[in-house]
Amino acid sequence: MQGFIGEFFGTAILIILGTGSGAGVNLKKTYATGSNWTFVCLSWGMAVTMGVYVAGLLGSDGHLNPAVTIPYALFGLFPWHEVLPYLAGQFLGAFVGAVVVIIQFTPHFKATSSKSGNSVGIFATVPAIKSPLFNFLSEVIATFSFVFILLNLGNFTTGLKPFIVGMLIFVIGTSLGTTTGFAINPARDWAPRFAYTIMPVPNKGSANWNYAWVPMCGPLVGGVIAAAIETAIK
Amino acid sequence: MQGFIGEFFGTAILIILGTGSGAGVNLKKTYATGSNWTFVCLSWGMAVTMGVYVAGLLGSDGHLNPAVTIPYALFGLFPWHEVLPYLAGQFLGAFVGAVVVIIQFTPHFKATSSKSGNSVGIFATVPAIKSPLFNFLSEVIATFSFVFILLNLGNFTTGLKPFIVGMLIFVIGTSLGTTTGFAINPARDWAPRFAYTIMPVPNKGSANWNYAWVPMCGPLVGGVIAAAIETAIK
Amino acid sequence: MQGFIGEFFGTAILIILGTGSGAGVNLKKTYATGSNWTFVCLSWGMAVTMGVYVAGLLGSDGHLNPAVTIPYALFGLFPWHEVLPYLAGQFLGAFVGAVVVIIQFTPHFKATSSKSGNSVGIFATVPAIKSPLFNFLSEVIATFSFVFILLNLGNFTTGLKPFIVGMLIFVIGTSLGTTTGFAINPARDWAPRFAYTIMPVPNKGSANWNYAWVPMCGPLVGGVIAAAIETAIK
Amino acid sequence: MQGFIGEFFGTAILIILGTGSGAGVNLKKTYATGSNWTFVCLSWGMAVTMGVYVAGLLGSDGHLNPAVTIPYALFGLFPWHEVLPYLAGQFLGAFVGAVVVIIQFTPHFKATSSKSGNSVGIFATVPAIKSPLFNFLSEVIATFSFVFILLNLGNFTTGLKPFIVGMLIFVIGTSLGTTTGFAINPARDWAPRFAYTIMPVPNKGSANWNYAWVPMCGPLVGGVIAAAIETAIK
Repeated sequence: MQGFIGEFFGTAILIILGTGSGAGVNLKKTYATGSNWTFVCLSWGMAVTMGVYVAGLLGSDGHLNPAVTIPYALFGLFPWHEVLPYLAGQFLGAFVGAVVVIIQFTPHFKATSSKSGNSVGIFATVPAIKSPLFNFLSEVIATFSFVFILLNLGNFTTGLKPFIVGMLIFVIGTSLGTTTGFAINPARDWAPRFAYTIMPVPNKGSANWNYAWVPMCGPLVGGVIAAAIETAIK
Repeated sequence: MQGFIGEFFGTAILIILGTGSGAGVNLKKTYATGSNWTFVCLSWGMAVTMGVYVAGLLGSDGHLNPAVTIPYALFGLFPWHEVLPYLAGQFLGAFVGAVVVIIQFTPHFKATSSKSGNSVGIFATVPAIKSPLFNFLSEVIATFSFVFILLNLGNFTTGLKPFIVGMLIFVIGTSLGTTTGFAINPARDWAPRFAYTIMPVPNKGSANWNYAWVPMCGPLVGGVIAAAIETAIK
Repeated sequence: MQGFIGEFFGTAILIILGTGSGAGVNLKKTYATGSNWTFVCLSWGMAVTMGVYVAGLLGSDGHLNPAVTIPYALFGLFPWHEVLPYLAGQFLGAFVGAVVVIIQFTPHFKATSSKSGNSVGIFATVPAIKSPLFNFLSEVIATFSFVFILLNLGNFTTGLKPFIVGMLIFVIGTSLGTTTGFAINPARDWAPRFAYTIMPVPNKGSANWNYAWVPMCGPLVGGVIAAAIETAIK
Repeated sequence: MQGFIGEFFGTAILIILGTGSGAGVNLKKTYATGSNWTFVCLSWGMAVTMGVYVAGLLGSDGHLNPAVTIPYALFGLFPWHEVLPYLAGQFLGAFVGAVVVIIQFTPHFKATSSKSGNSVGIFATVPAIKSPLFNFLSEVIATFSFVFILLNLGNFTTGLKPFIVGMLIFVIGTSLGTTTGFAINPARDWAPRFAYTIMPVPNKGSANWNYAWVPMCGPLVGGVIAAAIETAIK
């Protein structure tokens, strides 16, 4: 139960702060309209930092990400019986977080005509160049790098390690994330995409479910490769 | 008395550095005229970091914010008899901080015609889109997130935790703060607004007191909800 | 002797990295020509961080600044017999650091016509709006804030405290530093200004010695006020 | 063997994240096309941070750089019998990292005509102004500063020191790095340059091997001077 609560609130915070910054960049008349990629990556980074702190203090391991939980379980780094409550907390928390952002930015959604682009990009990832094979590879490589480094940070929920995890997200974003917008986390992509689909968002565009297999499968494959290599060399 | 002194100097530092950066952005002919939202949020973040360090070493808990002090007291996390000296220190410190910024930037206030916008935004928050209901909700949500995360950081005045609090302010600003300019603190908004009202600021505009209920009530409500939920789940 | 060596190398590093970033911004054809104020302040901040680390490990207290050393000595926080070696190390180190930057950027000094502005601003501070009284007050206020916060950081040469000192410089720069370019340190201004005066810098402009009393007197007065208030309230 | 593994994976991560951010800036249609020098330096800084964490936990000293390993060995700070495995890990890891970046950005290499500039700058350094003598001096000075500060950080693979090393790279980049693009590491320049030479990169330009002596010799000379001075004064 503690695991569920920690992952639920931690992922909710992660998505409120992360997609919240995306809303600020993509919607009209906010104080951050059109901000650059440094802004986006620093915000997502610190969003993860704060999510990990919250999750850690509420009693979970601060995964906030099925592409961490599942590979860790597969390679014996995490108990299987905790997997389901963790995943439930991650998807549910991300969904609630997305709903909060929709409320927070309602006047700005109204002020942003659908002609100026599909606002789905606030909630779910959109590749810079559409190319199924390379988009998939991108997510595999980015998530591999993320999980492989994470595995070498030691316990990352205590002290100032959550800050380092945030800076890790930042640099994954500024390096490998400029191709697909770095999902590297199926819950971070699917749950807000689902919220965007069913909630009454003003000036809504398509939720692009035909692309959604990439941010689901890429991160899981990348995470598994990372855990496999780490287990082999240590 | 220690509580008053800590909060007074801590909040004065917070406002000197925070509204100081706002003055740099909004006034003409400074070295930071027209700087972006990353600049604003990083500056406010580090302003809070330094305020917390100062307050902590002078002997207060580093709240610097009635939307922290009052909800903490309501839920038994802070002694009631300390509330009044804390609030007095916060509002007085913020007032003195704003006066210092007015002195520091006097030549730049003179160089900035009132035609280029109301300089009240340096001292008090102005919503990006005026909408009383959603502006209020924005401050509730932003302050809820801020206080909820703060409650999960543990003691935040020692070690490097004040830096993490600063990065928390940064990311609240880059995510939820792009709608109303994130007061999330009644003292940070009202005391500088009051200083702007009564001090002889060159090229002064209206102090917008008709909006001031939002940055007073929103943060208090958000802080209370955060403390309530935290108390319920722990 | 250790004090002299620590301050000498620490201040040299501070000036190499700090004025080096200024050269990148102000000279033509560098990879950072025209960079913004966030760039300048983050660079100076981290320059101080690295200078403090170097000074600390070589055995000094990491002042790197007469406006720290002299007020500390005046209020009994630093032994008088160490003041002279510290000041000597600070001015000499800053001079050597400036010479290194002149060498490093020689091709870029050659590529920058004196018509595009006086390059003295790389080495010494230039006020955004010339106003002797307010420029002086600005340096007093900025240095007061800097030294007052520094006094509340505790020992700042060990652990990660040098990073916090760097972020303090950053936020002083983004807030109070946008008026005069924040000398807040007589050695940081006078020694590179002197190097600029006597060295054969291509396309050199005036060294503006008529303004130099401000970055000398303002910081010293500000530092003394900070130490006086801190001593009074603790 | 541990030394080789640590340096291999650490340097691979460093190059994946570092040159990855360069690809984002220089190639068309990424989310970071045309990003500024702050972006570049922060990304390389955090790339080094993550490389050091990985190397440290896998059992090496986190050099990731022959201009650290060789000078340290020359002055008795590192055992000679470890030098070869370290260098092998550094060059091989950097090569593999560069290959990963080529795969990651294949669609973007295709979308970037060779008319918009030589993409070798993603992998290897290119001086802002070509001037063999001063380019060499630049790398000497930048690497001297880098290694000299590194020598004063103490053990830098544990705790949060890898973050400080990253901020050191950041500030070396924003100050001394704006002239040559700061190789300060022969492996970081030569191995990706070699990968660029032999791999089928779309729209490839010249690999500029005639400049490559600078990022090889400059860093080694600079590192040796730093270790010599440090040994002399301590």
